[in-house]
Amino acid sequence: MQRNTIMALKLHGPAMSTSTSLVITCLHEKEVDFELVPVDLFAGEHKQPHFLAKNPFGQVPVLEDGDLTLFESRAISTYVAEKFKETGYDLTRQQNLQEAALVKVWMEVESQQFCPAIAPIVYQFYVDPLKGVSPDQAMIDVNLEKLGKVLDIYEARLSSTKYLAGDFYSLADLHHIPYTHYLMKTPAASVINERPHVKAWWEDISSRPASKKTAEGMTFGEK
Amino acid sequence: MQRNTIMALKLHGPAMSTSTSLVITCLHEKEVDFELVPVDLFAGEHKQPHFLAKNPFGQVPVLEDGDLTLFESRAISTYVAEKFKETGYDLTRQQNLQEAALVKVWMEVESQQFCPAIAPIVYQFYVDPLKGVSPDQAMIDVNLEKLGKVLDIYEARLSSTKYLAGDFYSLADLHHIPYTHYLMKTPAASVINERPHVKAWWEDISSRPASKKTAEGMTFGEK
Repeated sequence: MQRNTIMALKLHGPAMSTSTSLVITCLHEKEVDFELVPVDLFAGEHKQPHFLAKNPFGQVPVLEDGDLTLFESRAISTYVAEKFKETGYDLTRQQNLQEAALVKVWMEVESQQFCPAIAPIVYQFYVDPLKGVSPDQAMIDVNLEKLGKVLDIYEARLSSTKYLAGDFYSLADLHHIPYTHYLMKTPAASVINERPHVKAWWEDISSRPASKKTAEGMTFGEK
Repeated sequence: MQRNTIMALKLHGPAMSTSTSLVITCLHEKEVDFELVPVDLFAGEHKQPHFLAKNPFGQVPVLEDGDLTLFESRAISTYVAEKFKETGYDLTRQQNLQEAALVKVWMEVESQQFCPAIAPIVYQFYVDPLKGVSPDQAMIDVNLEKLGKVLDIYEARLSSTKYLAGDFYSLADLHHIPYTHYLMKTPAASVINERPHVKAWWEDISSRPASKKTAEGMTFGEK
């Protein structure tokens, strides 16, 4: 299959950031070449005028595709998946209205249910120690309980379909990878491992070539 | 223009809920007939087995379209906008890749930046009093500051384009209507009114026929 090399996309963000690696995973799945432009979060580069001109909210990543500038990682991944429909894996199922609708539903579940529970846990384990603050165990526990309830629903879902939106891998699964990647390196990994269908799903989606290639850059503390 | 009446959609949820009215506004814009099936949130109907079978997360709204059952309001509105592309207003701009991408970006901004700030304010003003609890002014103030910063960016954006994604109304604007509708009936309305471009944008999007028709059902405390 031919790779898209005609016009290199520029992705601004550090490979270790969850939002940036979400887009990187999508670009790898779609076999799209891109240039990764580092952004030094520790130096606050994302709050400086040259970056705010690309994303006024001062967050990574930003994608530049010719004269089009996009931010918000989930919007970027959907754009990439739809634009490069000819190459790589079909992540949005646009040819089938019902399947495409279920991809949207489970992408929203990740955004509204999963992410608000897992993000604070990952921040406690990784970001607070960088600030010289100990992880807040009470905060971890509250969100682990919340995450467990979400994953109970995933466990039931994944006992009837192989992936979240159906028997096909999609953006809905992919969007879960970055935070789960970091969670699995902490004691909180048990919340995944103790649910057999969720565990099998995670092992499946994290072992895809695109996921493994992205994970190489996801070493927290490096940029 | 012909309305879609062949197969009536069933939308489960109370018209006064923000998420349900988001979908209702979209259905009106697309000129799609539907049956609104009431769900008694005050009696906890959304946590009962017959409702959990439709949405395991126990939240309104749920859309039934034949044998397809969808939840998460933003996923439903996108589905409706894409399925009924032949009728009503074009809310997704799918014919233009760049415009469609910017609609996605600003839909995500609503989801990730605007909603997390405005939702707690609206809850404090409307939901807490129903529970016999006074609104928490400190909580309102913290989130008003957060919302103000988001709206500063909107003010700049709306001084160069008429709507959020460009010079066309889209789902990105529509998704802001339900929470803002309730906010405008509180003293916190000043956060909109003191920003001239945001105020003009709100007056524009809330006065569309579809928005006005939906607002008739948005009387908090009634179902």
